[in-house]
Amino acid sequence: MPELHLLSPRGFRAGGAYAGIKTKRTNDVGLLVCDQPAAAAAVFTTNKVFAAPVAVGRDHIRGGKLRGVVVNSGNANACTGKRGKRDAYAMCELAADLIGCKPKEMLPSSTGIIGHYLPMTKLKAGIHAAAGALGDSATHALAFADAILTTDTKRKSAAVQLKIDRKTVTIAGVCKGSGMIGPRMSLPGKKHATMLAYLTTDARFYPSDGNLAAVLQQVSDESFNAVTVDDHASTNDTVCILASGASDVAVHSAGDFKRFQKALAEVCQGLAYQIAADGEGATKVVIINVTGAKTRDAARAIARAIANSPLVKCAMHGNDPNWGRIVSAAGYAGAEFDPAECVLSLQRTRVFDTGQPVAFDAAELSAAMNAAEVRIDLNCHLGKASATCWTCDLSKEYVTINADYHT
Amino acid sequence: MPELHLLSPRGFRAGGAYAGIKTKRTNDVGLLVCDQPAAAAAVFTTNKVFAAPVAVGRDHIRGGKLRGVVVNSGNANACTGKRGKRDAYAMCELAADLIGCKPKEMLPSSTGIIGHYLPMTKLKAGIHAAAGALGDSATHALAFADAILTTDTKRKSAAVQLKIDRKTVTIAGVCKGSGMIGPRMSLPGKKHATMLAYLTTDARFYPSDGNLAAVLQQVSDESFNAVTVDDHASTNDTVCILASGASDVAVHSAGDFKRFQKALAEVCQGLAYQIAADGEGATKVVIINVTGAKTRDAARAIARAIANSPLVKCAMHGNDPNWGRIVSAAGYAGAEFDPAECVLSLQRTRVFDTGQPVAFDAAELSAAMNAAEVRIDLNCHLGKASATCWTCDLSKEYVTINADYHT
Repeated sequence: MPELHLLSPRGFRAGGAYAGIKTKRTNDVGLLVCDQPAAAAAVFTTNKVFAAPVAVGRDHIRGGKLRGVVVNSGNANACTGKRGKRDAYAMCELAADLIGCKPKEMLPSSTGIIGHYLPMTKLKAGIHAAAGALGDSATHALAFADAILTTDTKRKSAAVQLKIDRKTVTIAGVCKGSGMIGPRMSLPGKKHATMLAYLTTDARFYPSDGNLAAVLQQVSDESFNAVTVDDHASTNDTVCILASGASDVAVHSAGDFKRFQKALAEVCQGLAYQIAADGEGATKVVIINVTGAKTRDAARAIARAIANSPLVKCAMHGNDPNWGRIVSAAGYAGAEFDPAECVLSLQRTRVFDTGQPVAFDAAELSAAMNAAEVRIDLNCHLGKASATCWTCDLSKEYVTINADYHT
Repeated sequence: MPELHLLSPRGFRAGGAYAGIKTKRTNDVGLLVCDQPAAAAAVFTTNKVFAAPVAVGRDHIRGGKLRGVVVNSGNANACTGKRGKRDAYAMCELAADLIGCKPKEMLPSSTGIIGHYLPMTKLKAGIHAAAGALGDSATHALAFADAILTTDTKRKSAAVQLKIDRKTVTIAGVCKGSGMIGPRMSLPGKKHATMLAYLTTDARFYPSDGNLAAVLQQVSDESFNAVTVDDHASTNDTVCILASGASDVAVHSAGDFKRFQKALAEVCQGLAYQIAADGEGATKVVIINVTGAKTRDAARAIARAIANSPLVKCAMHGNDPNWGRIVSAAGYAGAEFDPAECVLSLQRTRVFDTGQPVAFDAAELSAAMNAAEVRIDLNCHLGKASATCWTCDLSKEYVTINADYHT
């Protein structure tokens, strides 16, 4: 079987182009288009400082229908006032004209530096070039995937297939994100990173029933909203899913939903993992599994507090089994937690057990931590809720990248 | 006038000794003693994982009276279960025996590595040596100030004098703190870093009326609780004030309280500034002033979100006027905030004004940021509340210190 990609789900085309917005000479404008109006849902940053394309996107997603997305990298179009909003709308107009749809059927996204107006002449040329290059091959998927990258060192994509009614449904996605990663995204009107993710599926959903939106929010909470590099929620975070319906498989029974959601979670967790692995300066992925918490919110708060501690992240970088930093981070998460009840393991070695330190071979554990993936397992022994959070270590390279990325 | 120090307020003696708990051969056991029972108050970490000396200290401070404090550095006596608690109490017993008071009249503190039992034989010898070295000179104050340091590169002290009833009252303090600094301390029974601070005054307070405790909480909120290096609230944070009454000046009128509080705030803010300046790997202090917020809590949340963003801290390190990181951090603070209303200045240069970027000379501003102190002023234009937060930049040295500080 050939490898699955963003355009494996039937009914989609994509294209990318270099418009000169990014300094680095790789695609910086991308178009993803559905041949027919697609059922669509999107979650956006909950940052009170949200970019112009987020404002426009929230408006355009309201009907639950889209024809596509138009994206640029290299400029976030954030903190750009009314002119920024006009520019974000103009992106949609340009793309819609070329595709043959209404501007409000397009969702715009931007990522890059904050506080600069979009270079509209360049962008216009880029959208024209991307529209001229639309296609449905693996190469076209890559052209789009590249167009959304900024400080990322790698492309990020994932895909799965499942059977519903004995027919094959494909779900795929691409994303970007390396710095300013601490997403807390929600459906418009509710509840932050710059991370962008675009998901495609050929399953059929209905624009008006809110089912696709509900699935997207739940899956985002267990994937993108659970990845953190620097906990700095961006002005531009956006995850958008487009369901073409081209498989002719409608997702309607409770069982179908559950299976679709599980498959979508697999794609999104795969993408979230890739973001953590490509976090700015990262040398390893750190997986924090909190179990036995009183509530899911408590489990998430504890996992996130551990993931965000610079002391924990530096210890992970130095292969240092300094578990006191982990337990103390759990203690200030603002969630119910009792060190006298909890059990903490590092790379599956128990280091702290119900209030007491456990003797372990520090050199051996340190050697085990010198790996591409480090696992922190904390059982709170207070309840039945659990949560997983993905992060990366904190290296000197992180400081180099972020002290030198000049305005 | 000779320089003021921790023992300038009358009625106090202090001593320090090296007991071999710290690897670095500098004092690691300190005793601060009041000649008479002193009115006392203390705020402690609100981390749910709190060290044994915090548990014992909360108990001992209950009556609002103390004869002194006994401190060790090099070992936090945290995550050490029941044995840790027995050891913390034994510190008090040993010191009390030598001073001639009850164990519960002593407040114990520890700072250093988490998860190791205190080396009691060494500690006992250290307490004996510190008690044998008690005195009230500037040298004695320094011996105590040194005994509480861990990764600190500098001693930290501050003092002021004020007149109440035409008589001189002296307030002084020493503190430690460089890493694991994100204190949120409160009076026992209410609401995290390892930072330790000990304050002395010869003003008279009464143990039973709670006035000294109330003043300490308010002042801590505007000083120690507003400093962050890594936002990692420790298991051991403690600020303790001892009022000897030896000046024979009672603080009782509302006006006196206000003036005493202002003077105490000056000492504590001086100490908090020194912690930020000596933050692990710090090359500069960053002062975040938030004004025009809806509420004081909102102002504090916004200032703290900015101070804690690794992206902001790296930009400060690189002298990079990348103000988008600052505005976006304000936006995810969870407080009321509207970019269309706010005005942001960096080193007194306006960079963002009511939703629009302001043109500025980036090279000039970057040069101005290359200083020992950088100021961020954010006026939210939503209300009248304000808050200040002190932090430092994030350097590669921070990673070196914390990836290599092995268990």
